[in-house]
Amino acid sequence: MAKAQQHTVKSFDEELNQLENVLVEMGGLAEVQLDNALDALVRRDEERAERIIAADKKIDELERDVDNRVMRVLALRQPMADDLRAVVTALKTASIIERIGDYARNVAKRTAVISQNPPPGTIQSIARMGNMVQGMIKDVLDAYVSRDVQKANDVLVLDERVDLLYNSLFREFLTYMMEDPRNIAACTHLLFAAKILERIGDHATNIAENVHFLVSGEIPEDRPKGQQSIYEVEDS
Amino acid sequence: MAKAQQHTVKSFDEELNQLENVLVEMGGLAEVQLDNALDALVRRDEERAERIIAADKKIDELERDVDNRVMRVLALRQPMADDLRAVVTALKTASIIERIGDYARNVAKRTAVISQNPPPGTIQSIARMGNMVQGMIKDVLDAYVSRDVQKANDVLVLDERVDLLYNSLFREFLTYMMEDPRNIAACTHLLFAAKILERIGDHATNIAENVHFLVSGEIPEDRPKGQQSIYEVEDS
Repeated sequence: MAKAQQHTVKSFDEELNQLENVLVEMGGLAEVQLDNALDALVRRDEERAERIIAADKKIDELERDVDNRVMRVLALRQPMADDLRAVVTALKTASIIERIGDYARNVAKRTAVISQNPPPGTIQSIARMGNMVQGMIKDVLDAYVSRDVQKANDVLVLDERVDLLYNSLFREFLTYMMEDPRNIAACTHLLFAAKILERIGDHATNIAENVHFLVSGEIPEDRPKGQQSIYEVEDS
Repeated sequence: MAKAQQHTVKSFDEELNQLENVLVEMGGLAEVQLDNALDALVRRDEERAERIIAADKKIDELERDVDNRVMRVLALRQPMADDLRAVVTALKTASIIERIGDYARNVAKRTAVISQNPPPGTIQSIARMGNMVQGMIKDVLDAYVSRDVQKANDVLVLDERVDLLYNSLFREFLTYMMEDPRNIAACTHLLFAAKILERIGDHATNIAENVHFLVSGEIPEDRPKGQQSIYEVEDS
């Protein structure tokens, strides 16, 4: 009996581990998709952009896999306390990662138009911003796996820098558009790409909040005022 | 004993009802916020826009309320089958509604800049698109409450129309920007506003997918190709 119970417990742990493995695979794939999308943009590689668009399906499949596993664990295992939090957080985080994948695909979709006539230096600026955001995703996924609240909090600080960079790019690109109407199409899509990266940064902070909840059991309040006001005044 | 059990069951149903009530309240509030944001935009009413920005906090609070209720129900009630689906779907839907609220706030944030110098007719075009999207939110929330898969599917059709409208506005606004550099700032923000509305439409379809899952227990596959290709080719 004790052995059977042990077995049940072990198998439950395995299920939770597998759930987290799928989530980590999803996160890794979203990271790679964003990396590839930025690289395709810099190299103006439209064929590669097409492959990125197609590869997003895999992330969607993994989200369905996470959802199914979560439903199964909840129905059959009725997890409590830490385990319940782990399961619910996996569900919420998978949905965020799926969106990050969508955003990477959206950057890829804009590659063709942006490649046509971008003002010098602008694609590199976007790529630099993208690399910062990529770092945030990597860090927050690491923080998730290691249940490291401090590391998750560091991501919030990085997000403020990304927001500042976005605001400065926004003004820069608007200037290019005003200087020469031929810049308008490419710069509009560059602006959208920059906005997407800024949103991915926001999603990284949402995952950071999930890490907080995972470890402490408390749902964090809204983010500090600082970020909000930058966004309110500058971006829009 | 039978009476005690009855009581437990009834109280569980009440908890589920309350959970759904909070969700419906959240959805109604997001609808109102979007309605107000569009109205403030049309009337160029910056003060009202400020109030909309402030009111978004309430939606965030309601999401935390949903999350807490879901955790409590899962921990204490260990729901099965339909009940489990209702609880998990409430969690996922609350997160979508919270984002719709963020988007309404974002439209409000752009009111001041857009009001400064918009080409004639453009704000009305955005408002028309906004009204279509509002209708989608209303319909999908009704479909959610009444577990009406057909009504939820109708929202997918409306979303295709919204996507078409977005693509036509995109081209129109780009033309205004090329005609006169003084249109660039307002039109950029109008484009972002249009993109936000298009995204809200997407989120309405995500809720429609949740209705499908709620009723059938199956997680829907990706959406039909038609929409995707419109999005890929036109908006880019």
